[in-house]
Amino acid sequence: MQILRAKDEGFEAKFRKLVNSRRDSDPGVARDVAGIIAEVRARGDKALVDYSMRFDDHRLAPDGGDGWSISLDECKAAYDALETDLRDALELAASRIRAYHEAQLPTDRDYRDDAGIRLGARWNAVEAAGLYVPGGRAAYPSSLLMNAIPAKVAGVERIAVVTPTRKGESNPLVLAAAHIAGVDEIWRIGGAHAVAALAYGTNTIRPVDVVTGPGNAWVAEAKRQLYGVVGIDMVAGPSEILVIADGQNDPDWIAADLLSQAEHDPSSQSILITDDEEFAMQVGDCIDLQCAQLSTAKTARASIDAHGAMIIVDDLNDAVPLANRLAAEHVELAVADPEPLFGRIKHAGSVFLGRMTPEAVGDYVAGPNHVLPTGRRARFSSGLSVLDFMKRTSFIEVGDAGLGAIGPAAAALAHAEGLPAHARSIEERLK
Amino acid sequence: MQILRAKDEGFEAKFRKLVNSRRDSDPGVARDVAGIIAEVRARGDKALVDYSMRFDDHRLAPDGGDGWSISLDECKAAYDALETDLRDALELAASRIRAYHEAQLPTDRDYRDDAGIRLGARWNAVEAAGLYVPGGRAAYPSSLLMNAIPAKVAGVERIAVVTPTRKGESNPLVLAAAHIAGVDEIWRIGGAHAVAALAYGTNTIRPVDVVTGPGNAWVAEAKRQLYGVVGIDMVAGPSEILVIADGQNDPDWIAADLLSQAEHDPSSQSILITDDEEFAMQVGDCIDLQCAQLSTAKTARASIDAHGAMIIVDDLNDAVPLANRLAAEHVELAVADPEPLFGRIKHAGSVFLGRMTPEAVGDYVAGPNHVLPTGRRARFSSGLSVLDFMKRTSFIEVGDAGLGAIGPAAAALAHAEGLPAHARSIEERLK
Repeated sequence: MQILRAKDEGFEAKFRKLVNSRRDSDPGVARDVAGIIAEVRARGDKALVDYSMRFDDHRLAPDGGDGWSISLDECKAAYDALETDLRDALELAASRIRAYHEAQLPTDRDYRDDAGIRLGARWNAVEAAGLYVPGGRAAYPSSLLMNAIPAKVAGVERIAVVTPTRKGESNPLVLAAAHIAGVDEIWRIGGAHAVAALAYGTNTIRPVDVVTGPGNAWVAEAKRQLYGVVGIDMVAGPSEILVIADGQNDPDWIAADLLSQAEHDPSSQSILITDDEEFAMQVGDCIDLQCAQLSTAKTARASIDAHGAMIIVDDLNDAVPLANRLAAEHVELAVADPEPLFGRIKHAGSVFLGRMTPEAVGDYVAGPNHVLPTGRRARFSSGLSVLDFMKRTSFIEVGDAGLGAIGPAAAALAHAEGLPAHARSIEERLK
Repeated sequence: MQILRAKDEGFEAKFRKLVNSRRDSDPGVARDVAGIIAEVRARGDKALVDYSMRFDDHRLAPDGGDGWSISLDECKAAYDALETDLRDALELAASRIRAYHEAQLPTDRDYRDDAGIRLGARWNAVEAAGLYVPGGRAAYPSSLLMNAIPAKVAGVERIAVVTPTRKGESNPLVLAAAHIAGVDEIWRIGGAHAVAALAYGTNTIRPVDVVTGPGNAWVAEAKRQLYGVVGIDMVAGPSEILVIADGQNDPDWIAADLLSQAEHDPSSQSILITDDEEFAMQVGDCIDLQCAQLSTAKTARASIDAHGAMIIVDDLNDAVPLANRLAAEHVELAVADPEPLFGRIKHAGSVFLGRMTPEAVGDYVAGPNHVLPTGRRARFSSGLSVLDFMKRTSFIEVGDAGLGAIGPAAAALAHAEGLPAHARSIEERLK
């Protein structure tokens, strides 16, 4: 884990390198994905049958029958078979996520201004949303809840999940979460071809309007390439956490927080900023000790060694501009009074306030969405919300008097821009 | 102009073709743009110097000096030199756009729920926005206002405009609009290379966080490819209008409305849906008559002939599902009482209500943004707003009691997802 000291010469260059390091680029992926999308567009279901066999060792019947979907009854059965504590935990998570997102619902506007002109905007849900749920190790029921519940709250009529089922195996927790969230369809496909199928539709799978959800580099690239054909939530990259902590924390806690991102993926990034170098060394020791006990040790170790960093500053106030430049997905403020620091954090996906708010609690049950911008994208984008499943239609009603008041100015500008039909559509009405 | 009758056999197939027709795809553009972006990334200013000479016949000094920028003093001078009526028109437009967009500013949330857990979200503006303003025929001061004012209202600190100045020539109206809107920088570059410069930055031009604004197919493709490196407003395509009109309208007015989109570009699309075929024929005649008088006749004629359509329905209520499938950028409801139709329109960029609201009034002075989703993207996206220049940071403060209440559920889910460090970060704190 590299250590940067703010007072050392060369700190700025080292920090800039940290800020600009990309952990997710691979030009080969873009080419592969473009090919896969073209195949799905051209061959539809046939391409899905081929790719599912090749990538997931899963057979889809050529006629769109056997192997394609998981029924809602199977989801109900998975839910009923859950141990009580897990079922209660999923239900608690779902209800808290629902409550937080219901408060995000936007309000319409409809008013008349001083000129008597009626103006406003109305929000509507998209008709259909496709949710990507990764298979294998990253098949997280929490992600299904975090994507499906905002769509449901937004009022989306049709929610279609795609998830790869390697050798036909599905994850009962994911199916139970699908039951709780109330999804409408579950398709046993994954990868870039699943995203393409959702975007363009095939004989078996109807197209959707928005595709959201996490995925590997191929899935992320497919969403990026299909943006515009469908709406997408964001371009997601490897997870990251920035912990800003003073020396009064239990180093064991902070080590666990850093490891909780590191265990996601070797390309995850965990950074600690502290004003206490001795504390930082203790955290480093705790990381080593904990790592030895984790079933995810190999992944966590690789992430910490390749991308982890500790930054020693003179004063924790100096951490804020660094945090704003990093614009991290998750920012923990592990201090007694986090408010002054929080007030100056402008760029972050989500902020976790105080010593008793480990980031992991936000992954599951706190309520806010855990789908957050990564790779410095918190500079310009936000976590997933109901707004990702809605869109706004503005409207204007000018009327006779209103057109008399503002029409001539519009016509003058239209003439100045060399658009005579624009001007005429107003002038004819003013006659 | 093709005519489709809803009661004719084969209508559904013809209408579906209209819905699915793409007017903006060209695979060669994507390849060219990828090459240009790579050049700008690798060679920075030098690439801009080369491309500006090649595409715009405009010389940029290699040292970032002469030819690169237009000063704010030049913008002020252009404003001062404007004819009074144009200056007043621009000021009226700016003040109405400002008022509409100020009301869009989102409110932060900060509350404690029943479990005593503090939750919320804070909105911040992006630090820097880049606005693309086309050169040549499509150099519209109205577009500058529609992009810059929402950014300014959002609180963006640095607004950088890029605009190609062919042979060094700039548009005084655009400069005057820049003065009114209060932009901070104007760079004399355009095309895909200008978008790449804004996204990655060069020695002369600092990078921005969001790029918005209209442009040709190369500019649109550059924005699409750079999405994720920067935020973008949307993938814009050719303009379009859908007019739903009964037979009680003046056919001359409706013809002008249809032509006002057609005159933008040969790939623009104008569609009329009416329940009165005789009226449709009159509109067609008026289009022919007006076209002969327009300075933009060649463009308008090409658009009408290639993409224009009239759809005859039995009842105007039947127009609504067709409108929702078309999800047009602009929808006019030219009827005496537009409200019942409007209430059922779910997918549209902007709706213009009643006989006295020509779309063109919304292009300039009504207040709502004229940057709207095209190519059926109103199914999932919205017009430009202050939200495009802002982002939301969620936050969580759990505390001792809160962690006791929801921590165990989070830890249970973390274990179930195979993420032991997540669980440990909670369990250590619960001890």
